[in-house]
Amino acid sequence: MKKKVAFQGEPGAFSQIAVRRLAGNRAQAVPCERFEQVFRSLDEKQVDAAVIPIENTLHGSVHENYDHLLRFDLRIRGETSVRIVHNLIAAQGVRLRQLRRVFSHPVALNQCLDFFASNRHLEKIPFYDTAGSVKMIVSENLKDAGAIASSMAAEIYGARILKRSIEDDRENYTRFFLLQRPGSRSLVPPGGEMKTSLVFTTRNTPGALFRALSVFALRDLNLAKIESRPLRGKPWEYLFYVDLLADSADPRTRKALGHLQELADFLKVLGCYPRGTAS
Amino acid sequence: MKKKVAFQGEPGAFSQIAVRRLAGNRAQAVPCERFEQVFRSLDEKQVDAAVIPIENTLHGSVHENYDHLLRFDLRIRGETSVRIVHNLIAAQGVRLRQLRRVFSHPVALNQCLDFFASNRHLEKIPFYDTAGSVKMIVSENLKDAGAIASSMAAEIYGARILKRSIEDDRENYTRFFLLQRPGSRSLVPPGGEMKTSLVFTTRNTPGALFRALSVFALRDLNLAKIESRPLRGKPWEYLFYVDLLADSADPRTRKALGHLQELADFLKVLGCYPRGTAS
Repeated sequence: MKKKVAFQGEPGAFSQIAVRRLAGNRAQAVPCERFEQVFRSLDEKQVDAAVIPIENTLHGSVHENYDHLLRFDLRIRGETSVRIVHNLIAAQGVRLRQLRRVFSHPVALNQCLDFFASNRHLEKIPFYDTAGSVKMIVSENLKDAGAIASSMAAEIYGARILKRSIEDDRENYTRFFLLQRPGSRSLVPPGGEMKTSLVFTTRNTPGALFRALSVFALRDLNLAKIESRPLRGKPWEYLFYVDLLADSADPRTRKALGHLQELADFLKVLGCYPRGTAS
Repeated sequence: MKKKVAFQGEPGAFSQIAVRRLAGNRAQAVPCERFEQVFRSLDEKQVDAAVIPIENTLHGSVHENYDHLLRFDLRIRGETSVRIVHNLIAAQGVRLRQLRRVFSHPVALNQCLDFFASNRHLEKIPFYDTAGSVKMIVSENLKDAGAIASSMAAEIYGARILKRSIEDDRENYTRFFLLQRPGSRSLVPPGGEMKTSLVFTTRNTPGALFRALSVFALRDLNLAKIESRPLRGKPWEYLFYVDLLADSADPRTRKALGHLQELADFLKVLGCYPRGTAS
């Protein structure tokens, strides 16, 4: 049976590229309007898995999704980084020199300012969604309008890529997590190096973080990410997100987490998963 | 003479609220299209100061601005946190029941989904900018259209607030920095607790961060923020952003920074400034 995988956005959104990469070509991608719906539909067993963005190299961590990871009892089972490539797309038969207007999400339009600076006759027109702008120019059969979106959006809506990779900054990557319910069989094959993601809180006494990190340093366990975030409504207290380059089943990691439990007010392991590649 | 302060966005953007709060009512806010232009105009002495967003409670750190802080030789002289309050705004004389469409930036529209769920007859129309959408509905004198933006945008464009604070999440704050050139006199009065922001790199050997943090823990200096970020083009190497609850002129802080210089491959103090309040 086809696995159902929820994601936020329109069909053809960058998240759907991550769905394909993490759950395979045969998975059925299920679009949702809000991130909360993505989590809820997985929690309520309407889907088998979910794919969420967790950080972007230009814009930082998606804190809203960290909040949902705390609230819902789900597990991270895989990760992948997708390079955000913006393409100029038009309906079949439309040529670059016919264009007068380009539709897309304002964030995407703003990430292609060099392209617009050298094509001054093109008007930037904000639209609700990158992939949605491709859907619209195709269904309205616009001859003077293009859209900026992923190559998958061009593929899904039968449109044509007029110019590939028109983004200003090529170092624009989004990291995605694959989530499943606890106890369910992982869709991602095991193997290779593992990562373990966790969140913990400490009281904001000088050196509290230093002591917490000692549980890893004393066992030669390496961190891939650390980030602090003030706890809502509790001034002076902090959440820390940590990604360990370690397998949570490894006895050394288990001892470190047991040790951290003694020092932290709160500790939750969000998941253990094979380290992803970027492309 | 009036101080000129650069910010990114249209007049009435949330950044301009931060300009007013950090540089006073008499400062002249100078809008720029891109963040890079904000930094460049300060660096090239076209303005006296600049205000930039650095992190948001929902969306995380603005990494692009951390990159510019590394590239340009400027100093942080102040900080403030602005609560992002979205208001439904219309031209003078227009009433709520006349509205059929609401213009704003898609991020703002998406942060008011509860409002739209209970006002289903209102169509969400994406626009380039929050404040820009107010400017447009006023200049076009639209009778059936509203806009979502800051109260300052309503004030600047002579529009009327129909409904205040329609955002779904009240815990939406953006933290802003005031930047000036090194050696220039601070626009922010000294006093109160101080913060020092710095960035450093370590090689990704197990325990490298632990050793780096020891320079603060051993001296009872407290951290307000820590965040790691992979170094572009250098896999396995990391940048760390740290905010210390300390004055960089304090001998204890100076010793800690000297100690950190021994352990880190690279260290830059971005500024020392009075701790801001949130409102």
